[in-house]
Amino acid sequence: METVLPTTRDACLAADAQDSLRNFRTDFLLPEGLIYLDGNSLGARPRTSLATATRVLEDEWGTGLIRSWNTAGWFDLPGRLGNKLATLIGAGPDEVVITDTTSINLFKSLAAAIRIQQSLDPARTVILTERDNFPTDIYMAEGIADFLGQGYSVRLIDETLSLQEALGADVAVVALSHVNYRTGAMWDMTATSKQIHDAGGLVVWDLAHAAGAVPVDLRGAGADFAVGCTYKYLNGGPGSPAFIWVNAAHHDRFWQPLSGWWGHARPFAMEDSYEPVSGIGRFLCGTQPVLSMALVECGLDVSLAASMDAVRAKSLALTDLFIALVSARRGEHPLELITPMEHERRGSHVSYAHPDGYAIMQALIARGIIGDYREPHVLRFGITPLYLGFVDVWDAVEALFDILDNRLWDASKFQERLAVT
Amino acid sequence: METVLPTTRDACLAADAQDSLRNFRTDFLLPEGLIYLDGNSLGARPRTSLATATRVLEDEWGTGLIRSWNTAGWFDLPGRLGNKLATLIGAGPDEVVITDTTSINLFKSLAAAIRIQQSLDPARTVILTERDNFPTDIYMAEGIADFLGQGYSVRLIDETLSLQEALGADVAVVALSHVNYRTGAMWDMTATSKQIHDAGGLVVWDLAHAAGAVPVDLRGAGADFAVGCTYKYLNGGPGSPAFIWVNAAHHDRFWQPLSGWWGHARPFAMEDSYEPVSGIGRFLCGTQPVLSMALVECGLDVSLAASMDAVRAKSLALTDLFIALVSARRGEHPLELITPMEHERRGSHVSYAHPDGYAIMQALIARGIIGDYREPHVLRFGITPLYLGFVDVWDAVEALFDILDNRLWDASKFQERLAVT
Repeated sequence: METVLPTTRDACLAADAQDSLRNFRTDFLLPEGLIYLDGNSLGARPRTSLATATRVLEDEWGTGLIRSWNTAGWFDLPGRLGNKLATLIGAGPDEVVITDTTSINLFKSLAAAIRIQQSLDPARTVILTERDNFPTDIYMAEGIADFLGQGYSVRLIDETLSLQEALGADVAVVALSHVNYRTGAMWDMTATSKQIHDAGGLVVWDLAHAAGAVPVDLRGAGADFAVGCTYKYLNGGPGSPAFIWVNAAHHDRFWQPLSGWWGHARPFAMEDSYEPVSGIGRFLCGTQPVLSMALVECGLDVSLAASMDAVRAKSLALTDLFIALVSARRGEHPLELITPMEHERRGSHVSYAHPDGYAIMQALIARGIIGDYREPHVLRFGITPLYLGFVDVWDAVEALFDILDNRLWDASKFQERLAVT
Repeated sequence: METVLPTTRDACLAADAQDSLRNFRTDFLLPEGLIYLDGNSLGARPRTSLATATRVLEDEWGTGLIRSWNTAGWFDLPGRLGNKLATLIGAGPDEVVITDTTSINLFKSLAAAIRIQQSLDPARTVILTERDNFPTDIYMAEGIADFLGQGYSVRLIDETLSLQEALGADVAVVALSHVNYRTGAMWDMTATSKQIHDAGGLVVWDLAHAAGAVPVDLRGAGADFAVGCTYKYLNGGPGSPAFIWVNAAHHDRFWQPLSGWWGHARPFAMEDSYEPVSGIGRFLCGTQPVLSMALVECGLDVSLAASMDAVRAKSLALTDLFIALVSARRGEHPLELITPMEHERRGSHVSYAHPDGYAIMQALIARGIIGDYREPHVLRFGITPLYLGFVDVWDAVEALFDILDNRLWDASKFQERLAVT
């Protein structure tokens, strides 16, 4: 699939017919006729989700009531689902929990890393991240630095300051997104983790746009911490709880300030002082939203049934096709590819800058081709191999150029853009 | 209802027939024959919950997909549902949001209070709470103090140190539970808030066992912050998101370190520095679990249809009845009431200490009478006027004394207790 791209719509249909992942589309319920290119913002609904929700509501909550914390395994959901997710991100057993939000988990992992550094080298007071990172990653780092005071600060990598230049002896922890939310550019996790360790830093990887989309090997890469969400490529449902991983080497030496009762060694002993449980469980804090969490399993089960290598190969073939079809028709349109061409630097979405990006995306959405828009001027197309095929990419690019070539967008829509996801 | 308690089972049935709240029971789906006395741990399932979940899954997620953040109002859920809750706790419009967990919201409000004090009187470095508070309240305070360092510490009120004695010039903020999770004892919120303010402190009220159970008037009481959960007396579903309130006087002067993108003034502008939105919205952090949050509305709508005064009057009548029936039959049993007798000091549950409390509760649960157990030795009975009647209290006490009088419990079960909710 990686070398010979289809060059006609019929060839796309033929490629889809031979696709080893083609049957996974039936595991999702998508509206007829829609081409959904926003699975990197909110994944599609697994077919099993309503039955699972009904079971949780009727049998577990309705009938089991409070007993279901034990009998239906509600207490075990963060760890049990974390273990299911582990194999998709190169984590070991009992190294991942599903809990809280990505933002909250960033806070926990940054705080834990800072605490480790306070015991190793207290002069390390800088949290390093990227100006181009998803904003909440920057904001959470700012929140910690501001709260701690004592000289803690945030430093941003950007076009004027490379990672290597920024990695001074004052850097405590580096927070990077494995795949950039806007451009789709991907860091080399192994080389970058080593580069940071060589400079004495710890690293937190945000896998929001990576988990379930690209192969991730946290243990192999020697990463320290990772967080991410389950509602994008993992299809857990709107706002489904996030995940957090810590390298087993840190399990009993990390501490984090969101020290709620779910992370206590003996939560039901009702002791009057906090003592963290051993291991990843100390990243738990408060009572979790059971219904939203239970649905994470529906999405995970679909991803676990697929070969991650096949998903990656198809993702690259589809993004290659998208890029090739756009290149062939771009002409004079001010449409600039901002996603890397090199496979090893590309995640699973393709993004273009266009001065009228917002209005063009609205015109596409009106035709049932759902991508999304990101500031500034970026049209973003998420490629989810489990429910998209070659012909979907073909049809999406056809529609894009029908709009571009015939100027079928309403530029006045631009002012709406900041209210839109 | 407050003065004449029924003294026979028939009189209980007659009282139920005259109860103005009797029809609310049909708004909940409870298993036939069960007497559910644990609504203070997990509320019952509202009849509308499955239809709501189905709508969110099929129409909003399945069909609307990413568009539902706007078209189905997902972004507005924290504020819209917060406004519904506001009237139940004496809050004003746009003063409450539903979000995250009670533990996380405690962290935010304690951190916000500390930050306010840092600008007023930086020598105030003590977080004051109760040794008998729900443990997560203590643990979250410990987490903040530990993380801040710089002399911050936690002080605990207990039988050796009263609130007044503990309120030194070093106290920044006091975190109290309006109704104690174990004993059901209730603070006078107005007098206690004034007492704390007079000593220069700020106060955070944890309403977990109060919201929906007893009248709460946060604004009238002059409170500063409040947090609480929606899955107890508000019947929001297992682990449904919590709430947080801040007095409007603090709206533009508070700051909190969980500064995620949902609390940003312009979240979709993707700016590279945090700027909090004005008002309660700055207590938001990350993307919320939409399905679990949407179900909060089912429970809120039932509570909003009831008169809070009628709920309180019935709660006191039922807890009075429970206490009177137990007193009449206690005899030589080592069953000690630990809930205050005075109405103005009692929440909506009744608790007894008994050396074999755990095993006795297990015997009750085996008969379909669901209360719960809390360390040490405490049998806890939650009284939820919307779906319990006088005859339920009568039958529960009958069963309790059948077990006590005939020693029908298995004391060997005691060792299981720490694994049970």
